[in-house]
Amino acid sequence: MRIGVVAPGRAIAPELAERVRALAAEVPGVEIRFHPQCFAASGHFAGDDDLRAAAFAEVANDPAVDAVWFARGGYGAFRLISRVLPALESAAADKLYMGYSDGGALLAALYGAGVGRVAHGPIPADLNRANGAAAVRRALAFLATGDAAACEPTAAERPAAAFNLTILAHQIGTPWLPDLTGHVLMLEEVSEPLYRIDRALGQVLSAPALGGIAGVRLGRCGDIVPNDIDFGRTEEEAARDWCARSGIPYLGRADIGHDADNKVVPFGGHMSSP
Amino acid sequence: MRIGVVAPGRAIAPELAERVRALAAEVPGVEIRFHPQCFAASGHFAGDDDLRAAAFAEVANDPAVDAVWFARGGYGAFRLISRVLPALESAAADKLYMGYSDGGALLAALYGAGVGRVAHGPIPADLNRANGAAAVRRALAFLATGDAAACEPTAAERPAAAFNLTILAHQIGTPWLPDLTGHVLMLEEVSEPLYRIDRALGQVLSAPALGGIAGVRLGRCGDIVPNDIDFGRTEEEAARDWCARSGIPYLGRADIGHDADNKVVPFGGHMSSP
Repeated sequence: MRIGVVAPGRAIAPELAERVRALAAEVPGVEIRFHPQCFAASGHFAGDDDLRAAAFAEVANDPAVDAVWFARGGYGAFRLISRVLPALESAAADKLYMGYSDGGALLAALYGAGVGRVAHGPIPADLNRANGAAAVRRALAFLATGDAAACEPTAAERPAAAFNLTILAHQIGTPWLPDLTGHVLMLEEVSEPLYRIDRALGQVLSAPALGGIAGVRLGRCGDIVPNDIDFGRTEEEAARDWCARSGIPYLGRADIGHDADNKVVPFGGHMSSP
Repeated sequence: MRIGVVAPGRAIAPELAERVRALAAEVPGVEIRFHPQCFAASGHFAGDDDLRAAAFAEVANDPAVDAVWFARGGYGAFRLISRVLPALESAAADKLYMGYSDGGALLAALYGAGVGRVAHGPIPADLNRANGAAAVRRALAFLATGDAAACEPTAAERPAAAFNLTILAHQIGTPWLPDLTGHVLMLEEVSEPLYRIDRALGQVLSAPALGGIAGVRLGRCGDIVPNDIDFGRTEEEAARDWCARSGIPYLGRADIGHDADNKVVPFGGHMSSP
């Protein structure tokens, strides 16, 4: 299992890569390579769009790589879609792509284009969280063997997809929203006030393009930014309300979030490793 | 000219209404009424959805009212769309609707449904800004006589529409995005970091549903929240970049924003008062 790491959004520090390599060395059969682009810088981004897109395509098109792992989120993946998709070659189809948060923009586009297998799961940058090693080990276990214990427990029941709520909201109406008909849609959020969570849920659950989903599971909404006056409803009440308005089943909570407990959600029901 | 004020989002204080009434009294022929719903409270909102929607429909359907003026923004208008549209009667068509910021969600839906005339312009709550009386006087001048001096100077050249960028981004993909083919789209923003401005511009300018716009003018992006590292491009560079990617003309700046200088943009080129 050869894992290639790229950074479609922000950069990571070489020292973090060192620590992830040490964890990967614990897993038999795993070989991990961080593309040098992970450490590049251009303003906010891990290199400019051309550099990030070229690195992504290089790793995705490398027949010696089995899985493309997103180093970090932070905004930048959406900017690469129109550059990356046309650059992908046949070897890109035979791979697993894993990331979350901002990386979901690119995962959505890959899933929509039918490129490889896609999973929402922990990333190297999670090592900077409290107990982050558990998240990275979980991701490595999934990448290495498709470990079912690493996965969100309901993800095997029905085809599923998972996104950061705000990232999915900003994908709607673009050419890169995948067809999620029949999927359970899992949504998590971090560092937003409740009025923005309600607003994004309203858009996602009012969009005819997502009207065919099988239901919604709400992941954790962490570090909620306080409203200046109390919003008056919780994130779960908001999800239930918008689901009810749209006739979409609300199925309960999902075990995903911007935290060390974030479980892997393989898109569309695939549960096996490459 | 009878103006009815309602609050689709957050509430205003009765004291603010008093001060707006005093300014309205300076304008010959203007009569202004604040619906009591403007002062209601339900958590974050100026009353719950039913109360806000009922007040909006009541004022919109009142044949004695010439213009419906949104008291304040702050989130809530989107939640009312599916309640308000079916409740509108024939008298609602013979009116001007004016607001901005969060109110743009409802303006978009009204414009899309062809209900009355719609304008993006200052609101009563602007009186709490520095020099806010100038904004409210400008709005009253437009409401009273269609005063061209109150309007964004390029708005008479071609059909135009104006929105808060984030509000428009969250309208995309919903049933309530109007057809803006041939319109100059003016976008303003407030209190967002540059990476979010870039992200929302990317969505708006990548959406096929907005592919037919005549061009983009960027209003002011005020109170930009600092990125933890410098984003590396300005909001105008971001707008130029996304316009170039999409083949949409970037036409320069618009004289709109979350500030006292905010000019009126009548949607679709109507410049006359009711």
